[in-house]
Amino acid sequence: MSRKNMQVLLAHRPRGWVQESDFRIVESDLPALQDGEVLVQNLYLSLDPYMRGRMNAGKSYAANVELGQVMVGGTVGCVVESKNAAYHVDEIVLGYLGWQQYGITAGGLQKLSPNEQIPLSAYLGVVGMPGVTAWYGLMQIGQPKPGETVVVSAASGAVGSVVGQLAKAKGCRAVGIAGGQAKCDYVVQELGFDACVDYKAGHLAADLAKAAPQGIDIYFENVGGEILDTVLEQLNPFARIPLCGLISQYNATEPYGLRNTGLLLTNRVTLQGFIVSEHGEVWPQALQELGQLVATGTLKYRESVTQGLENAPAAFIGLLKGENFGKQLVKLFS
Amino acid sequence: MSRKNMQVLLAHRPRGWVQESDFRIVESDLPALQDGEVLVQNLYLSLDPYMRGRMNAGKSYAANVELGQVMVGGTVGCVVESKNAAYHVDEIVLGYLGWQQYGITAGGLQKLSPNEQIPLSAYLGVVGMPGVTAWYGLMQIGQPKPGETVVVSAASGAVGSVVGQLAKAKGCRAVGIAGGQAKCDYVVQELGFDACVDYKAGHLAADLAKAAPQGIDIYFENVGGEILDTVLEQLNPFARIPLCGLISQYNATEPYGLRNTGLLLTNRVTLQGFIVSEHGEVWPQALQELGQLVATGTLKYRESVTQGLENAPAAFIGLLKGENFGKQLVKLFS
Repeated sequence: MSRKNMQVLLAHRPRGWVQESDFRIVESDLPALQDGEVLVQNLYLSLDPYMRGRMNAGKSYAANVELGQVMVGGTVGCVVESKNAAYHVDEIVLGYLGWQQYGITAGGLQKLSPNEQIPLSAYLGVVGMPGVTAWYGLMQIGQPKPGETVVVSAASGAVGSVVGQLAKAKGCRAVGIAGGQAKCDYVVQELGFDACVDYKAGHLAADLAKAAPQGIDIYFENVGGEILDTVLEQLNPFARIPLCGLISQYNATEPYGLRNTGLLLTNRVTLQGFIVSEHGEVWPQALQELGQLVATGTLKYRESVTQGLENAPAAFIGLLKGENFGKQLVKLFS
Repeated sequence: MSRKNMQVLLAHRPRGWVQESDFRIVESDLPALQDGEVLVQNLYLSLDPYMRGRMNAGKSYAANVELGQVMVGGTVGCVVESKNAAYHVDEIVLGYLGWQQYGITAGGLQKLSPNEQIPLSAYLGVVGMPGVTAWYGLMQIGQPKPGETVVVSAASGAVGSVVGQLAKAKGCRAVGIAGGQAKCDYVVQELGFDACVDYKAGHLAADLAKAAPQGIDIYFENVGGEILDTVLEQLNPFARIPLCGLISQYNATEPYGLRNTGLLLTNRVTLQGFIVSEHGEVWPQALQELGQLVATGTLKYRESVTQGLENAPAAFIGLLKGENFGKQLVKLFS
């Protein structure tokens, strides 16, 4: 075999906003497989906000990417060569092979059974890590009850879109926060949220009060910063905050100073940070429920697919700026 | 009966620090009892930080004191007249009769059985609301495990002193944060904490790192502000923060901007605000355990007793500034 492998490496640790120059794209020959190894051709790469944290040097919940290493990420691919009896050529696998066209691994792959109702790319989104993230945060931490109001930020994104639809299915009022009228329209008209507030319109507090007139019982947090402060002012007693992400802060050189911590006390709020990969025990149930909702057309989703691995850095920077619309993917081969 | 009743009324809603002029002391004749009512002579009044919130106009977790009304507060007193068959003259009762020498009520009193091991005043402290607050926050929210490190702010106070001693009893490392060397010495030498850090010394982060070398698993929060930000930097993964009070913020005209919210996510922290009066189901168990620890001399406490109701406003202001040392009480009659 002398296949060429294009890879995206971490070249510099970003200060503030990520730049394309923080990545380096290289091409090299693939080495021969060792016994027990599998060669996977990656078809789709998932781009997710958590990857920004992996670019830092500081302590985080997972090992950071070292300078010169391949950027990490979830992938769906096809086995093209195998020296491992557990995997066969042409099998479709979910893996964590990173920003590269081909990956070599001795395991950690999950076989997928492609079917007509769930396309391959969905295993990186609505029936993958982002979907389970939404499910875990809402169901396990949020514990929604019928009639409650659930607010989610980044509502048109891979996680937020699922949160609101699951909340509706639980009999809750679902309110999104998103950037721009187009995303808000999609969230209400396509996803069936009860309301969606455009934080870019400049009067979030007033708009949110209108959209959540009974106050907020669950706030599924993906963004942080000033939006979090604003939402805190409208929480009901005993509100729950599944803390999933803080994308507004990932590129900030100065962290935002949260003013309304006093309301966490007076409203007896429970705020809980979580990382879905640590809760493997719920994945089977979550994936089963999500898969069924997708297969029956109840759970809708949208993808933003960038063509070609060489365009992954720009797509990732766009994701951090909220320029994507729906789950951000890279299709590695045309 | 023509007993005179001295009362402390709320005269003004404070802006920033409470002033003595925010209170008005009045004396009036007690009215005759109606059927079903009880007249209680208050012996001890409890002064607690939560009362600061009751002086505000804004929404809080309990009804605020109206201007011209008697300040609220826990009391231990003696029944001196009764038109209620359930209460008899000379019975000792725990009540919520507020900042006044006498209170008239039709109920809401709990009879106490005075004994040699637990003095009356302790029912307003270590075997009362502050003690149960410590117990609930540490045990129910913190869920300490042997070997973990528990940090508590306002460590020499009515709540903090109990938190650390309960933590020790659970096999944890107990670390206090207090203001000044005298309080820190007391916390370690008298209460048996493993260490106590003086936040006024000016190098809290470094001192805390030394006192909690394995990181912090539970942070029982009574103060908020910059101390909270500093502690957040030393939390371990899956840390718990029972959020009990934010006394540093109660008189702030501008709320402190909390910078380290990102660490709540990366460390998968659970932060939970609570009000102990809402958890009546645990009071019997908590009081039984606390009473036993006090009776056997295992649980130590310290009181700061101000003589005379007319001195309650100054004592309360001192409490908010950390000038008290141990549980702050007012003894109403000499």
